[in-house]
Amino acid sequence: ALAQNGHKILCVDCDIGLRNLDLALGLSDRALMDFSDVAQGHCSLESSVVEHPKIPGLYLLTAPARSRGRPVSNQQMRDLLREIRTQYDYCLLDAPAGLGTGFMLATCAADRAVVVTTADASSLRDAQHTVMELNRFPLGSLHLVVNRVRKKMLRSMHATIDDAIDKAGLPLIGVVPEDDALTLSLNRGVPLLLADYGSSAAAAYRNIARRVAGGKAPLLRIR
Amino acid sequence: ALAQNGHKILCVDCDIGLRNLDLALGLSDRALMDFSDVAQGHCSLESSVVEHPKIPGLYLLTAPARSRGRPVSNQQMRDLLREIRTQYDYCLLDAPAGLGTGFMLATCAADRAVVVTTADASSLRDAQHTVMELNRFPLGSLHLVVNRVRKKMLRSMHATIDDAIDKAGLPLIGVVPEDDALTLSLNRGVPLLLADYGSSAAAAYRNIARRVAGGKAPLLRIR
Repeated sequence: ALAQNGHKILCVDCDIGLRNLDLALGLSDRALMDFSDVAQGHCSLESSVVEHPKIPGLYLLTAPARSRGRPVSNQQMRDLLREIRTQYDYCLLDAPAGLGTGFMLATCAADRAVVVTTADASSLRDAQHTVMELNRFPLGSLHLVVNRVRKKMLRSMHATIDDAIDKAGLPLIGVVPEDDALTLSLNRGVPLLLADYGSSAAAAYRNIARRVAGGKAPLLRIR
Repeated sequence: ALAQNGHKILCVDCDIGLRNLDLALGLSDRALMDFSDVAQGHCSLESSVVEHPKIPGLYLLTAPARSRGRPVSNQQMRDLLREIRTQYDYCLLDAPAGLGTGFMLATCAADRAVVVTTADASSLRDAQHTVMELNRFPLGSLHLVVNRVRKKMLRSMHATIDDAIDKAGLPLIGVVPEDDALTLSLNRGVPLLLADYGSSAAAAYRNIARRVAGGKAPLLRIR
């Protein structure tokens, strides 16, 4: 959505071994070189990113399909991000699940972090722990997205989005409703924002993009 | 479900930092000592496991809430599993997401592995990669569970459970339907199998338990 608003965006998949961002963007098997190739100086940033054929200004730098050779160091990642900063308006680093190496790499050089949780107890506790690990980020640079929200579920379990915010201890930057259109577009290899302009999750993404870019957007009403 | 069938079961949470199995079992904050304490000889297995107050024969050994000190080695994990084998009928090791240290620890000493996927493309690709990493397991000891299956979704995206089996390359041991009762019981801290005997996911779990124990059970029809 940021790219559709005219920004130049680089998405970097940091999930070594289980990369998926290429699938989500509909760029499966297009990327040959990955962020470890660039960070370790085996090839240039320009030659390794892939531009989306249907969304100008949206680029992907993928993760290695398997971990091999020397691991990328935090310093190499920071140098890579310094180069990226000179060329792109925003760089979105997709961190893998868990608090392992990929998480550290994705967060060591970032300016802001968005913690994505669902409204269930298990995911909220993970979000709390993740926030604790992210304590080196300054105030105001940590945000929360509550994903896969279903109004029916929320009501029947007496939980609210407020609980999610309190439990994770972060300001909310977006609420994304559960939306079958997302699974469908993922399986078809088409980004949701291209596939379905009527989708409620797509509307939520566009609002989040506006807020990330410093604008204002109302919180969606979950139907 | 295995414990309800009279087996003595130990569940070990291998997700260092983001443990959740205690929540899922309704044993939150009961466990003081974790598997790293036992594996590194700081305390005995007997003193560290917690028995479920409502399901006799079901024990939990939790994961460290934060990684600290010396990491547990594969050999220490194998020694721990050898001790566990003498005292329990089944030990279920819950591996974290991703292919990191926790995954290696959980799989280095196991006899069988169950790969849990959903039916979407991204999760199926992760399952394929996970199977590749599990190639050291002998034939017949790897199984697939397809989770969160919704008949409506399956039909509309022309995917079938057969695709899931083909893509992951594993024999299916269970199909678990999407079930709101699961989220509700998780958030209430009550295991689903105690909370709701009418739940379709609970029925799927009971079938999987029967198959794991060598019995036969029909595949559930997803409504």
